[in-house]
Amino acid sequence: MSGALMEAEIAEQPAVLACILQDRRPEIDRIAHEVRQRGPRFVLFMARGTSDHAALYAKYLVETRLGMPAGLTSPSTITVYDSRPDMRDVLVIAVSQSGSSPDLTEPFARAREAGAVTVAVTNAPQSPLASRAEYHLDVGAGPERAVAATKSYTAELLTLYLLIDALSGGRGDGLASLPTMARDVLAQGPQVAELAVRYRFAGQLVVTGRGYNYATARETALKLMETSYIVASPFSGADLLHGPMAMIDRGFPVVAISPPGPGASALLPVLQRLRVAGADTLVVGGRETAGLGTVDLTLPDLGPEPISPILAILPMQQFAFFLARERGLDPDKPRGLEKETRTW
Amino acid sequence: MSGALMEAEIAEQPAVLACILQDRRPEIDRIAHEVRQRGPRFVLFMARGTSDHAALYAKYLVETRLGMPAGLTSPSTITVYDSRPDMRDVLVIAVSQSGSSPDLTEPFARAREAGAVTVAVTNAPQSPLASRAEYHLDVGAGPERAVAATKSYTAELLTLYLLIDALSGGRGDGLASLPTMARDVLAQGPQVAELAVRYRFAGQLVVTGRGYNYATARETALKLMETSYIVASPFSGADLLHGPMAMIDRGFPVVAISPPGPGASALLPVLQRLRVAGADTLVVGGRETAGLGTVDLTLPDLGPEPISPILAILPMQQFAFFLARERGLDPDKPRGLEKETRTW
Repeated sequence: MSGALMEAEIAEQPAVLACILQDRRPEIDRIAHEVRQRGPRFVLFMARGTSDHAALYAKYLVETRLGMPAGLTSPSTITVYDSRPDMRDVLVIAVSQSGSSPDLTEPFARAREAGAVTVAVTNAPQSPLASRAEYHLDVGAGPERAVAATKSYTAELLTLYLLIDALSGGRGDGLASLPTMARDVLAQGPQVAELAVRYRFAGQLVVTGRGYNYATARETALKLMETSYIVASPFSGADLLHGPMAMIDRGFPVVAISPPGPGASALLPVLQRLRVAGADTLVVGGRETAGLGTVDLTLPDLGPEPISPILAILPMQQFAFFLARERGLDPDKPRGLEKETRTW
Repeated sequence: MSGALMEAEIAEQPAVLACILQDRRPEIDRIAHEVRQRGPRFVLFMARGTSDHAALYAKYLVETRLGMPAGLTSPSTITVYDSRPDMRDVLVIAVSQSGSSPDLTEPFARAREAGAVTVAVTNAPQSPLASRAEYHLDVGAGPERAVAATKSYTAELLTLYLLIDALSGGRGDGLASLPTMARDVLAQGPQVAELAVRYRFAGQLVVTGRGYNYATARETALKLMETSYIVASPFSGADLLHGPMAMIDRGFPVVAISPPGPGASALLPVLQRLRVAGADTLVVGGRETAGLGTVDLTLPDLGPEPISPILAILPMQQFAFFLARERGLDPDKPRGLEKETRTW
């Protein structure tokens, strides 16, 4: 059946999360202990595509939980312009499903030579990226065969959460029910399938979110572009008001990712502006935001906001999957893409 | 006449650039000297909207010219989540036309308290942001009244270039002809106006660029969204191949910003992929890339690649301006926007 791979991989996520919680802890604690002893003072992430969204999530965690300045690298300054930044006291975390794109491997190797503490987070322990790292964390999502990444994304999010939690001296508390919560969210699939019908003919769409779930907004847009070929533009709530708001007219479809927490509160004035502009909004969140959109997707418990991105992306993966099928497309075979994207 | 403000401000840019080159040097040298004595090891930029694109450009310069790791902040980790990163040894550069958005002023002030060396680059010396900085650089673009920023953007780019050049021990050589080059590029306006007609009915558009001119691609997309209400999605050439490529089908309009240099070379394989997908491409560059697009905009001398973003954005501002008028819109009055965007 069309999309069988992506459908199966979406469904595997509660089990993947459970495995990470059960198995990865000792290794994460060991790596966190060693990294802390090296005393890095800045954190840089290297990633592309879906993994770049996991990195964006982790950047928020580093800033809020570790109190360390953090940035996302532009790999091309190294691969295209041959720059050689001084990386002493910098913790470089590369995130990649396949661990094989040259435009990550090369800057990563060079960062290590330049003095960085290097951690690779991949789904491919035998990959070039993993072999160049001082520390490698296998997210253990198992082989991912659909082109559109799903389970590797949530596995990266949880692994990064546990790593940063351990670096901040935490013990990963409060996560035991995460797999069950993921199962409960995924159980709303039929409702998401119904919702997707409504977007059958949408030619374009804006996705917005703030704080931790800005990453969810970006990843939602990418899933939609990859599988449904809809032109989906992601904006943080604040950036949306700095210009792009002008293109939102009556009936323009906007998806607002708004799980409960300070991020959702900061998004409320944006929803207000969207209402004034007459946008057609789908608000994805908890009971707190039910009724705020033209339509709503009210999810069960999404936990504390810092872990909510692991759960909030699940219905959006389903949404992209169902919308692709609704449009007569095969979500497993996006045109013009291969599973391992090699850029330089 | 509709768009008179934006048209006048676009035309002022050669004069604005000339003033910066003539007047700002001593102050920039003094600030660079003092900042260097403080010995920062990491650079963070704070900005929103158009100024965020100036910051993105400057981030490439910092990595390549200063050899220092750099990042763009997510202001909301401070304003929404109340994070308190340790900013010792960090140079924080805030960039803002108005210098008045609370979601920059507050994180900037806090970064200073937390030990950062703080530089504000604004077009408003009396602004809250300027008053909170240890060092303030006035870009001196003069009052900007059109909602869509044009002259303040190129003024920010040149000011940041001069600052980073001075920090790296340079003396701003090779820039004397920049105002003349800007005048020559702007003189192609009638050709750009003709080109805009072709996009009268485009509902969406992708803009791509690599390296230094990824910032130009992002700023082009924002100008189009603000003035023409076209859904314009910017991607770095590498990111485009990581997923969004799937939505590009036969006739899909793509603008490729490709001034001569390593960035353009790295974009060539992307143009090849776009050709295979049947995209309708507008290639904006020098003689080197003429003939590579479905249509081309061949510009006169854009100088060495690191300064080309100051020139390459000029025809794209004109393009946004003419396209808005072609669509019967007033480029000076984008719906739903105000000149000073206040976010939090």
